[in-house]
Amino acid sequence: MDTEVFENLRLELRRGSLTLAVLAQLRTEQYGYSLRKALADSGLAIDENTLYPLLRRLEAQGLLASHWREEDKRNKRFYRLSPLGEIVLYQLLNEHEAMNAALDRIVGGSSAGQKSPLSPELHERELDHETQSR
Amino acid sequence: MDTEVFENLRLELRRGSLTLAVLAQLRTEQYGYSLRKALADSGLAIDENTLYPLLRRLEAQGLLASHWREEDKRNKRFYRLSPLGEIVLYQLLNEHEAMNAALDRIVGGSSAGQKSPLSPELHERELDHETQSR
Repeated sequence: MDTEVFENLRLELRRGSLTLAVLAQLRTEQYGYSLRKALADSGLAIDENTLYPLLRRLEAQGLLASHWREEDKRNKRFYRLSPLGEIVLYQLLNEHEAMNAALDRIVGGSSAGQKSPLSPELHERELDHETQSR
Repeated sequence: MDTEVFENLRLELRRGSLTLAVLAQLRTEQYGYSLRKALADSGLAIDENTLYPLLRRLEAQGLLASHWREEDKRNKRFYRLSPLGEIVLYQLLNEHEAMNAALDRIVGGSSAGQKSPLSPELHERELDHETQSR
């Protein structure tokens, strides 16, 4: 039960950031596998069953453009941020920055940037490892 | 349509952070109004129709404890982080930190901390204002 509660909150927390990460990564054209690898190399592992529906959704919303192209004798679908996607990405990054600033103030107490006893720095490496191995 | 797409992505991005902010703020006991005011003062405005269901959900999950108490001649329901909530908050802050580090690497290119042309700093104040006025 506790594990399930935590897991749901964790997924909720990840969802928005994953979208942001995918949009940001697709400022450079990628196909599915190379995108997944690039995200994982940066510390954001994402399951295929999460990534491909997300790509389809973002393309349907007009934020991504895709086309098929042969590479290494295989047909691959390449994705890239659309002009609308660039605008939306920029707005979402603004929003993300503002929320993180607010969250820092809340977690750190009244003075911004101050580290609270709950500061997660100590276990950051540990979790980073855990995230990458999923 | 573009506005709706952006608004949905914005809400998705906010959802996880709001939960984190509420849990972090309730390390100190608060009732609904004082909690909402404290969050807004830190730059995270939250609607009553979002906050109260969230508080009920977090209490049902065992992350918050609440009790009624009279203050200024009115009965108020006070909320506070439970011992389980403290553990979950700590884990979520770790997760959040790791995701932000990954996102920084993705947005900034290969070197962490480097500012990309999409860095949102310029419009931060503007957005902060917008967030507070909702």
